[in-house]
Amino acid sequence: MCGIVGVVSNAPVNQLLYDSLLLLQHRGQDAAGIATSQGNMFNMYKAHGLVRDVFRTRNMRSLPGSVGIGQVRYPTAGSSSSAEEAQPFYVNAPFGITFATNGNLTNWESLREELFRIDRRHINTNSDSEVLLNVLAHELQQSSNGVSLDEDAIFRAVSAVHRRAKGAYAVVAQISGYGLLAFRDPFGIRPLCIGKLETDTGTEWMVASESVTLEGMGFQLVRDVEPGEAIFIDINGRFSARQCAINPQLNPCIFEYVYFARPDSLMDGVSVYGSRLRMGEYLADKVATNLRLGDIDVVMPIPDSARPAAMQLAARLNLDYREGFIKNRYVGRTFIMPGQAVRKKSVRQKLNAMGVEFKGKNVLIVDDSIVRGTTSGEIVDMARAAGANKVFFASAAPPVRFPNVYGIDMPTRRELIAYGRTDEEIAKVIGADALVYQDIGAMQQAVRDMNPRLERFDVSCFDGNYVTGDVTTEYLDHVERSRGARTDKDAEGGLRINMGHAATEEA
Amino acid sequence: MCGIVGVVSNAPVNQLLYDSLLLLQHRGQDAAGIATSQGNMFNMYKAHGLVRDVFRTRNMRSLPGSVGIGQVRYPTAGSSSSAEEAQPFYVNAPFGITFATNGNLTNWESLREELFRIDRRHINTNSDSEVLLNVLAHELQQSSNGVSLDEDAIFRAVSAVHRRAKGAYAVVAQISGYGLLAFRDPFGIRPLCIGKLETDTGTEWMVASESVTLEGMGFQLVRDVEPGEAIFIDINGRFSARQCAINPQLNPCIFEYVYFARPDSLMDGVSVYGSRLRMGEYLADKVATNLRLGDIDVVMPIPDSARPAAMQLAARLNLDYREGFIKNRYVGRTFIMPGQAVRKKSVRQKLNAMGVEFKGKNVLIVDDSIVRGTTSGEIVDMARAAGANKVFFASAAPPVRFPNVYGIDMPTRRELIAYGRTDEEIAKVIGADALVYQDIGAMQQAVRDMNPRLERFDVSCFDGNYVTGDVTTEYLDHVERSRGARTDKDAEGGLRINMGHAATEEA
Amino acid sequence: MCGIVGVVSNAPVNQLLYDSLLLLQHRGQDAAGIATSQGNMFNMYKAHGLVRDVFRTRNMRSLPGSVGIGQVRYPTAGSSSSAEEAQPFYVNAPFGITFATNGNLTNWESLREELFRIDRRHINTNSDSEVLLNVLAHELQQSSNGVSLDEDAIFRAVSAVHRRAKGAYAVVAQISGYGLLAFRDPFGIRPLCIGKLETDTGTEWMVASESVTLEGMGFQLVRDVEPGEAIFIDINGRFSARQCAINPQLNPCIFEYVYFARPDSLMDGVSVYGSRLRMGEYLADKVATNLRLGDIDVVMPIPDSARPAAMQLAARLNLDYREGFIKNRYVGRTFIMPGQAVRKKSVRQKLNAMGVEFKGKNVLIVDDSIVRGTTSGEIVDMARAAGANKVFFASAAPPVRFPNVYGIDMPTRRELIAYGRTDEEIAKVIGADALVYQDIGAMQQAVRDMNPRLERFDVSCFDGNYVTGDVTTEYLDHVERSRGARTDKDAEGGLRINMGHAATEEA
Amino acid sequence: MCGIVGVVSNAPVNQLLYDSLLLLQHRGQDAAGIATSQGNMFNMYKAHGLVRDVFRTRNMRSLPGSVGIGQVRYPTAGSSSSAEEAQPFYVNAPFGITFATNGNLTNWESLREELFRIDRRHINTNSDSEVLLNVLAHELQQSSNGVSLDEDAIFRAVSAVHRRAKGAYAVVAQISGYGLLAFRDPFGIRPLCIGKLETDTGTEWMVASESVTLEGMGFQLVRDVEPGEAIFIDINGRFSARQCAINPQLNPCIFEYVYFARPDSLMDGVSVYGSRLRMGEYLADKVATNLRLGDIDVVMPIPDSARPAAMQLAARLNLDYREGFIKNRYVGRTFIMPGQAVRKKSVRQKLNAMGVEFKGKNVLIVDDSIVRGTTSGEIVDMARAAGANKVFFASAAPPVRFPNVYGIDMPTRRELIAYGRTDEEIAKVIGADALVYQDIGAMQQAVRDMNPRLERFDVSCFDGNYVTGDVTTEYLDHVERSRGARTDKDAEGGLRINMGHAATEEA
Repeated sequence: MCGIVGVVSNAPVNQLLYDSLLLLQHRGQDAAGIATSQGNMFNMYKAHGLVRDVFRTRNMRSLPGSVGIGQVRYPTAGSSSSAEEAQPFYVNAPFGITFATNGNLTNWESLREELFRIDRRHINTNSDSEVLLNVLAHELQQSSNGVSLDEDAIFRAVSAVHRRAKGAYAVVAQISGYGLLAFRDPFGIRPLCIGKLETDTGTEWMVASESVTLEGMGFQLVRDVEPGEAIFIDINGRFSARQCAINPQLNPCIFEYVYFARPDSLMDGVSVYGSRLRMGEYLADKVATNLRLGDIDVVMPIPDSARPAAMQLAARLNLDYREGFIKNRYVGRTFIMPGQAVRKKSVRQKLNAMGVEFKGKNVLIVDDSIVRGTTSGEIVDMARAAGANKVFFASAAPPVRFPNVYGIDMPTRRELIAYGRTDEEIAKVIGADALVYQDIGAMQQAVRDMNPRLERFDVSCFDGNYVTGDVTTEYLDHVERSRGARTDKDAEGGLRINMGHAATEEA
Repeated sequence: MCGIVGVVSNAPVNQLLYDSLLLLQHRGQDAAGIATSQGNMFNMYKAHGLVRDVFRTRNMRSLPGSVGIGQVRYPTAGSSSSAEEAQPFYVNAPFGITFATNGNLTNWESLREELFRIDRRHINTNSDSEVLLNVLAHELQQSSNGVSLDEDAIFRAVSAVHRRAKGAYAVVAQISGYGLLAFRDPFGIRPLCIGKLETDTGTEWMVASESVTLEGMGFQLVRDVEPGEAIFIDINGRFSARQCAINPQLNPCIFEYVYFARPDSLMDGVSVYGSRLRMGEYLADKVATNLRLGDIDVVMPIPDSARPAAMQLAARLNLDYREGFIKNRYVGRTFIMPGQAVRKKSVRQKLNAMGVEFKGKNVLIVDDSIVRGTTSGEIVDMARAAGANKVFFASAAPPVRFPNVYGIDMPTRRELIAYGRTDEEIAKVIGADALVYQDIGAMQQAVRDMNPRLERFDVSCFDGNYVTGDVTTEYLDHVERSRGARTDKDAEGGLRINMGHAATEEA
Repeated sequence: MCGIVGVVSNAPVNQLLYDSLLLLQHRGQDAAGIATSQGNMFNMYKAHGLVRDVFRTRNMRSLPGSVGIGQVRYPTAGSSSSAEEAQPFYVNAPFGITFATNGNLTNWESLREELFRIDRRHINTNSDSEVLLNVLAHELQQSSNGVSLDEDAIFRAVSAVHRRAKGAYAVVAQISGYGLLAFRDPFGIRPLCIGKLETDTGTEWMVASESVTLEGMGFQLVRDVEPGEAIFIDINGRFSARQCAINPQLNPCIFEYVYFARPDSLMDGVSVYGSRLRMGEYLADKVATNLRLGDIDVVMPIPDSARPAAMQLAARLNLDYREGFIKNRYVGRTFIMPGQAVRKKSVRQKLNAMGVEFKGKNVLIVDDSIVRGTTSGEIVDMARAAGANKVFFASAAPPVRFPNVYGIDMPTRRELIAYGRTDEEIAKVIGADALVYQDIGAMQQAVRDMNPRLERFDVSCFDGNYVTGDVTTEYLDHVERSRGARTDKDAEGGLRINMGHAATEEA
Repeated sequence: MCGIVGVVSNAPVNQLLYDSLLLLQHRGQDAAGIATSQGNMFNMYKAHGLVRDVFRTRNMRSLPGSVGIGQVRYPTAGSSSSAEEAQPFYVNAPFGITFATNGNLTNWESLREELFRIDRRHINTNSDSEVLLNVLAHELQQSSNGVSLDEDAIFRAVSAVHRRAKGAYAVVAQISGYGLLAFRDPFGIRPLCIGKLETDTGTEWMVASESVTLEGMGFQLVRDVEPGEAIFIDINGRFSARQCAINPQLNPCIFEYVYFARPDSLMDGVSVYGSRLRMGEYLADKVATNLRLGDIDVVMPIPDSARPAAMQLAARLNLDYREGFIKNRYVGRTFIMPGQAVRKKSVRQKLNAMGVEFKGKNVLIVDDSIVRGTTSGEIVDMARAAGANKVFFASAAPPVRFPNVYGIDMPTRRELIAYGRTDEEIAKVIGADALVYQDIGAMQQAVRDMNPRLERFDVSCFDGNYVTGDVTTEYLDHVERSRGARTDKDAEGGLRINMGHAATEEA
């Protein structure tokens, strides 16, 4: 997952983009980057690490300009992740374009081949984002065709991108000398919203992955970008928008609501916090059906994302609620010392169970979801070690049985604990006395309760139904094999930094 | 406030100390340091910054040894804070001693003068900790007096330290070739506890500011160090302890329970989390007396430390509880760009108010305490801007009216919002429709409920009664003047790094 | 001036390129960069600073591949220097090209305008090198025209570059998936030579600015690249060459021989060391004519570049030779401290005059050339302060009266001490008792003596005759104005780092 | 070998010390450090690396004060070198002392034992310098004995140091609140000189290892510190001096003249450059006796230190002189890449032989000395590879047959090429057609010619006669064994950084 932001202002935007990226940092901690425009020049700085570690005074000074884009990144699932660079990306022909995206293309390998063979464009990374940028660049070249670029040409290029690219993508891009372009894939899988700020010197615009960014920066949320829609804001702040897809249909990724987005974001009309409370209520009903409530002494969340669901579940079932697990906010590294064995770092580095809250009690632990199950198993162990009597487990999301190909990093099918297991078998593996999963329908309904117009979602990780229609079992096999191969290669050694940008400290 | 840890093990302790400091990081984010012993050699590394930023592989490799101490620091109140160095400190005569402390001496200036004039020891910083180390060094020289050092001589030296030093101090120190010494001031103002781990190769010992550190590292909490007590663990792991003060009397700092310590710590027999829940209950009763409960639609905590009190308050009063404020976990810097005005950073950078939870509601906001009141005022504003109807405010601690001289950084009296103001006047200043403060007695009782043997506390910030008996109005005037002077000097410019240790990056 | 190198090998080339750049470091200390090819991927790293400071282990690991190019840079004269980036540069369409150059285009501004307006290629720096790369990229796109690239197409593109570009340029470039291209401008102003190494696994090729690089790396010097010629070595090591200019005519820059190149290089058939000895001989004859030899007690060089000329001059005139000036090899910075005046750093930081060698003597100081004259003046002062009686000065090069537009950083005309002054006036300004300049003809003859086939040189700095034919007084006025403007802008503040590469430490 | 400097000024000395260290950098490139005094506070910064890399703006700002000392270091021979820290060192009792030295103690191990056992002072490194500092500290404590410190007490302490310490040492030290102390061992093995600068605000003083530092900073050389003498300059600039040794006798290290010192230094009354010219003359006579001059076509120096001797030799013998070897000024690293063999770095990285100067000629190569002989062998090979016919070799110093224990890093006896070999055998090993060594007497006479009062020298490396009288064969065996042991230990792995100072980058 990644977070993106773009802004057209009348004042320097470097600090504004920096602060925006801090508000998107939960969407990716792996790398961060900013590109600004000043006259016909781009300025860019990006590197591995957290926003606060990446940008220093000298970097910020190198980013003048009143138009810009930014991105925070973490490696996404699928073939494109491992060698992927920090964003934004840049191409200098045609026009000069800087570009950042959130999502993942499912057909990036064939597109890359096409670009190389037919369009003679060189892709220097294994990043599907660089592929998408070059498709856009090529289509802009075609649509402008020797004359000066106008909105119509730009929107025609986006339409062509929609025809060629498959998968999930929310994009912000600067076209040198023209302005800021943003668009969202025809299924609207990844979020993108528009904000506005009226100032003395005119209207300023911001597009961002989450509304919390707009609000935090003092912008007013105008609306979400529609699936398939492109918006263009020229360097003078003139806004235009056009639907560029043929059959756009909103299918937002349900994981944003389950745990990914900030609770205070409003996303496609849904309060994320509200939807989590609702998931807690639906989960409460399932718990009431599946467990004997009299057996439960206390409900405990895994902080932070499961807190709303757990709290609401406890309230609805009239059960005691306690924060028995405390999160360690400061996490460090395990150093490899010559001649010393490495102590295994586990979930215990991240969570601590308070003995006084567990001793002799039957606890119902609530988490937002269960993926590999390793963490859940360790949590159950910690609860028992802290003196718990019985340990029940509830998940606000249904069993995860399929990989994600739309931009969320997930393990392969075989690594998913729910792959080929019943709920009872899973309970046994994680060591819980009982396990209750949310139903798929209830999860969707919890979000839909907040915005009844939301008919469909991408819930492929739960039901194996991939909305883009091009994801077959063979495709998943291929992706998982590449992933394995890539990991092996990485293990061999080298940090691979392409094309001259700054790397973070090694040691 | 600071956090300290010391360990005597049979295996390398660098990673153990690093992980321990991460678990103490909430006690100080300004600097971190580790000193280990290997044979007759000390190894030390310390610098400004967070633990995870300070220590890199090369630093960890430079810290071999199976005995060691560590510290995390933030600048404390009073004269000693500004130029204070990162800890541990080192003196090479007598014996070689490395030393780290948590607390603050109230008579460090006269001690410093004595050391210089009579003991001819040079103090190179304005740190009261360096003074305390040199008092200890001098007394060890006196008590050993030309013969080899034994436990008796060590404990006699600690007794002499107790006679000379006034204030709050919890100390860990290594004496080269001998072992690990730890002690706590005769009032036990600052915490320190002892843990033990039986391994195949013998017993290992750890002392630390908080029990959460012991438990996180797999040690078992044995007990707290008693006020005035010293413990000594020699390099072979032999443990001894002695009461070194004449009239020791436990008066732990109540702020540890109010907000400073981790909720999952057990401190002088008290579950910190439990005491916060109890503060919520007592506060609930005061709220019930002072406000009309029917006027309150929802209770909201200021995350994270006020959460237990707020949750319990809501439960006891049977009011709705919502997390309307979301904490921004990722905080960055404001860069100063040539020719640009600096945007004011406020509490809005740290908190976000969710409109959907506030709109049209009467909210009761619960915080752990109110110091300057600036933050509280901004929070009330945010609530109103988010659409709240009425905004009530409750503080789990009583009004703060006096400065802290025992190691917690507090502003001067005039900067305290409660200085010379009634509750109503304070409510007005922060813009709340009503304001309810905990009573001093109730706050103490909340802690005492968890451990009835705890008779006394240091509550000087609330009632102006300083347990060490040497803090007069003239003294406070002097401290506050020095503080002002120091701040001015700092503003002039220079980063001052004494005696050759590594500084973190400037920009 | 800059230094460039390119290599096609059968083994990793990162260390080879690093070592090569060390051997070219005297040609530029401002920035360094390497780009390698591995399969279809480029890897690149570049930054400000010396080679040994720029590349660390992590950077070297990020540069796998057995084909690559490198550059060391210092800011060149003319409009393009100030904001110029480190090289190599990269464009991804067509094919993917990385590129490094030594020299300076005289018509880069109009080319840039053309690229933007007609070719729709975005140039993001003020570097004429980025312009030259984009001209090459555009011409490759034209000449390949939809079919796969072959040698013929490549050479046709270079011919087109020669038609469009004016000025001095020696180029190395990698075309992704094809191989290494190198060429030299039609006047051969900047040097470039070809080396070869037969290994067990086949023939390896290297092209570099100086032969010392080839030899240092164990390659055999094959020959110089001819003016206007292009050579292409495909990724399998197959070598081809073609003359791509219409009227090529060798006019090498005479400054390479005077002081720029390493003495141990063989450049266009001339031993640089040998040519400097010969300059000493011709200068000796001029001295013998102009001064009374009996007046001269001792000859002293300004180390290091004037040493051969001075030594040979002394030998020919049978005068004593002493190294009275010692060079300080370690040069540091002047730090700006708040509230302190900056001590002026002068030539005294770089040279020291030994009193014992000067006391009471009449000395003839020999330098390679005189540009602004400031240094010469300080040197004369130092000699007098060291006790010299009379101080004569001789320059192995004639008076510099015109700026350089072909890649050597020179001040504007008004800053040249010889601008509008006679030799006698110059002697007076620098405070010498007499001053002897080499004649232009003698300087050229000294080089020609080493290789009689060398008919012409670029000696524009001395006679104002610019071989490219497009340099008018108006042009020089324009360049000098831009230079002034640029300097002012830089003074405003910001370090400007374009497009995301790593910068060196600020402070 | 190391370089030291101390200064008492009326203005900030940080830049002055920095510039001074640059002028001493040739004496040690391993580490650098500065300590200044401001009021009663010391400020210090030190780290591994070159002066220009160690100090950045932030470090310089942390060094206010108008009194200070500095050091550049390289690891010295003998037991103390490997784990030795950067200097200055600091102790805080008594008074506070910062200290830097050049030299090596021969009895540091027994002193260290004494300090530990009797004086109860902890030495945390294997540095003999830390031992010497603690001896001084202890003696200052004894001589001051409870009363305020005066000159008499200080000089008595130095006398006691002379009684206890054996070996070579030149020292600068600051005593907090008192002033700058400097002294030289009773044999004056290591150099130290005094400079003076009259300013508007009074007299400023500088002491430094070489006169070139004084002159470079604008100070006037007053005289050398005498063997055994101590000088003290109080913080008000009052100068006093006293002979503190019983039988002082000047025996300066002859290596300073052979190659170590800067040629432009005046050391114990001798122009280093002048003494090298004289060595060339004496060597010329030996060459004339041993070789047939008609066989020699050309004389070539190994740059830079052999240049004066070679030049003068050629002049005296009326032979041609050419600089056939060019020094590579820019030297880098060999990176270890996973899976790649390391190319051997040899003298070829540092020197290049110009083919045109060697082809078909009989060359006489002149070097300053021959130690292991490896380099000489490679140089002879290079000359032959460059086409030389016969290769003769001459050394301006006699055969090195014994280790150095007075501060110069030398290999063990067995590693010395001259150990147990005749001149003819050595010639054979290095592959020379003939080899001529200077005689010991001639070497000494060359220096004495410059200052006839210089009767004795430390020439122990050549004749095995150690002036301090405590160096036996058993001692040398012990030192060489420790050296071997230490090297093995180092090879195991860890960079060992003691006591918290900054390390340079690892990779």
